[in-house]
Amino acid sequence: MKLYGYFRSSAAYRVRIALNLKGLSYESISVHLQKGGGQQHAADYLKLNPTGLIPTLVDGQLNIAQSMAILEYLEEVYPEPALLPSDAAGRARVRSIAQAIACDIHPLNNLRVLQYLKHELNADEAARDAWYRHWIDRGLSAVEAMLAGHPSTGKFCHGDRVSLADVLMVPQVANARRFDCDLSKMPTITRIVEECNALDAFARALPERQPDAE
Amino acid sequence: MKLYGYFRSSAAYRVRIALNLKGLSYESISVHLQKGGGQQHAADYLKLNPTGLIPTLVDGQLNIAQSMAILEYLEEVYPEPALLPSDAAGRARVRSIAQAIACDIHPLNNLRVLQYLKHELNADEAARDAWYRHWIDRGLSAVEAMLAGHPSTGKFCHGDRVSLADVLMVPQVANARRFDCDLSKMPTITRIVEECNALDAFARALPERQPDAE
Repeated sequence: MKLYGYFRSSAAYRVRIALNLKGLSYESISVHLQKGGGQQHAADYLKLNPTGLIPTLVDGQLNIAQSMAILEYLEEVYPEPALLPSDAAGRARVRSIAQAIACDIHPLNNLRVLQYLKHELNADEAARDAWYRHWIDRGLSAVEAMLAGHPSTGKFCHGDRVSLADVLMVPQVANARRFDCDLSKMPTITRIVEECNALDAFARALPERQPDAE
Repeated sequence: MKLYGYFRSSAAYRVRIALNLKGLSYESISVHLQKGGGQQHAADYLKLNPTGLIPTLVDGQLNIAQSMAILEYLEEVYPEPALLPSDAAGRARVRSIAQAIACDIHPLNNLRVLQYLKHELNADEAARDAWYRHWIDRGLSAVEAMLAGHPSTGKFCHGDRVSLADVLMVPQVANARRFDCDLSKMPTITRIVEECNALDAFARALPERQPDAE
C-alpha cells in the first residue's frame, strides 16, 4: 500500500495510526502542501485524487480519497484488530464521535480555509488564530460532553479497546496543542489521548516521526 | 423513530432521503435553527446531542448524532434496500464521494460558520455569498471529476442503484441552487440529481415539503 500524505496533515495522521494499529506496512509518499503552491494541486496528484486534498490510499489498483472512507475500507478489508465495536449501537457512537471531529472541526481549520481567510477576507494572524481555536473549542467541548460520564467511555473513547473515535481524536488534539488551545476543561479527552500516545501504533504515527517532518 | 431536524438543514435532508428509501416511517421534530437564538442550543436538545447540531436520530433507546453516522447505522440495521454497494472497492468509492460532500463542502457553509463570518470577521453579505459559492464550486467540481467518465458511474453516482453518494449529493445541490451557484460545468452531477429527484423517496424529502417549511 501507498499513503500519499504530509507529516502535518491530521487527516493523513489518522490513516497512519489505523495502518499501524492493523499492522499494515505501507510506503509513505509526501505531498508537500505549501511547496510550489501546493503539490496537492499538481496534475498527477489530481488524477489520483480529484479533490486535491490529502490523504490518498492506494491499495493495489484502488485509489481511495477521504480519510473516513479510507478508515472504513481498512476496517472492512483488514478487520483485525477491529476499530469499530461489534454492536450497531456502539458502532453508531464511535462513528458519531469520529464524524464530529471529521466534519465539525477539521474542515474549518484546513490550510485552504486559513488561506482563504487571509487572502480573500483579509483576516490577520490574530483573527485566523482566534478562528482556529474557536472551532476546536466548540468541537472538542462537544466531544468531551459525549465522553464524560457516558457509561460506554472506558480507558479509550469507547470501552477499553482503541476505536476510530480515538484514531480521529489524537490528531485533532495534536493540532489543538500546536495552536495553544486551552484543553483544561476537557479532562476526559486529555486522559484518553495520553493512553493512546503510550501505544506504539500512535507514537509511530506522530507528525515529528515522519520522514518528511520539518 | 424520531428525527430531530429542520426543513432547510441539508444534513437532516440526507437522513430524510435515506429513511424514505428504506421505507422507514418516522416522526419529524423541528429544531428551529434561528428562533430564540437557535433551539439547537437549548439544554434539552444538548442532552440529546451535545454537539448542538442537527440532525439527531432517535431509534428506541439510542440517540445518534452526525448524519453520516446515522446513515451508516441505518444501513447496518435496516439493510434493504442497500445504499452501499456489496464490494469493498465500490463501498470505498461511494463513501469517498459522500465524505467529499460531508467534510469538504457542507461544514464550511453551515449557519454557525456564516454567523461567525458576519459577527466576528465583519464579512458583509456579498463576502459571505462569495465564501458560500467558493466552497460549493471547489467541492462539487471535485465530485464532478470523480464521476465524469468513471466506469462505475451509471444512472446514479455508482451504477444504476441509488447509494449514499446520491443521498449526500442531492441536498448539497439544492443548497447550491438556493445560492445561485453556477452548475453549468457539472453536467454529470445535474443529470444524476434529476434522476434522483424523479424518485418519490427524494421528492418527499424536499425541504419545501416538510411540515416546518416556511
